[in-house]
Amino acid sequence: MYSHVQLNKAYRLLNHGPTILVSSRHNGKQNIMAAAWVTPLDFDPPRITVVIDKSTYTRELIEASGTFAINVPCVAQLDVVRKVGTTSGRDLEDTDKFAQFGLETFTAKEIDAPLLKGCVAWLECRIIPEPYNQNTYDLFIAKVVAAYADERVFSAGHWHFEGHDDLRTLHHVAGGEFFVTGAAVKASL
Amino acid sequence: MYSHVQLNKAYRLLNHGPTILVSSRHNGKQNIMAAAWVTPLDFDPPRITVVIDKSTYTRELIEASGTFAINVPCVAQLDVVRKVGTTSGRDLEDTDKFAQFGLETFTAKEIDAPLLKGCVAWLECRIIPEPYNQNTYDLFIAKVVAAYADERVFSAGHWHFEGHDDLRTLHHVAGGEFFVTGAAVKASL
Repeated sequence: MYSHVQLNKAYRLLNHGPTILVSSRHNGKQNIMAAAWVTPLDFDPPRITVVIDKSTYTRELIEASGTFAINVPCVAQLDVVRKVGTTSGRDLEDTDKFAQFGLETFTAKEIDAPLLKGCVAWLECRIIPEPYNQNTYDLFIAKVVAAYADERVFSAGHWHFEGHDDLRTLHHVAGGEFFVTGAAVKASL
Repeated sequence: MYSHVQLNKAYRLLNHGPTILVSSRHNGKQNIMAAAWVTPLDFDPPRITVVIDKSTYTRELIEASGTFAINVPCVAQLDVVRKVGTTSGRDLEDTDKFAQFGLETFTAKEIDAPLLKGCVAWLECRIIPEPYNQNTYDLFIAKVVAAYADERVFSAGHWHFEGHDDLRTLHHVAGGEFFVTGAAVKASL
């Protein structure tokens, strides 16, 4: 179903700017939220930045655990992305978003976090502590320590969505409106 | 041709993760380069982050001027994006990339920078000096001080590319391979 992505190619999972889901676990509590503000920061070692608001339950979990996973969702998961992006795990009594919305997961390898099944790529991340950025800008810098992708749409360092429209990635604009990742084009140079 | 975008809606020009061009001017020297690693950081006041490598001529100009412009290019400009992304303005004698590649510009209003004609959105940015982030991570944080968009594809805070396929935005993967911003979809919730 999925295969490992070489760490020096992991930036290609995010380079086209898809909306992602951040999942986290600490002391048995787990959560998942949508985030559009993620971007690569370096190729090798692969580092990324992600903006996580102070008000979120995810913020509490990732600051406590020092880790999180990035899940790259696809068109088939549009409503899941919206659901986990508009509810707070803190408001759920005796359950979590995974149970609440019937989301299946598998286990991360290098960190303790649930990875969402049905996504097309996953990056396991370890936070590089930068308290000033975190407190001033809600900005987290993290090292990617493992990466995987659904080999039907990403292999040998390249996305290939043709024939898999339901597995295309998503780009959030605002208020539940997204663009689907469209046609591949290549510069003539 | 273009209209002002309210500053609290400026993040929507970048939220879907397009590849952008950074343009800059200082003491009569000007340059433009491609960058994929840009993302909103806050809504209001609008702030963004962008990664600008130390080796680039743009880095020299924006650190000297304290400002830069983000130009959001479109499909019609695919080869321009590639050209300005694979050459250095430092290597051009007695000219610059604008003259070299026949690029027309208009003048920014709040900062001193050339804005590239034919793009579909522009954000004028003033750097918030953070020397540690700049030196350690090549990461710049900036405040958006003015924003515009081509009203054929962005108005009232929303992108609407239907009927304007040549004006769709681009998402770089690697090596001159891009995805075009695809179909609009809306979550059912």
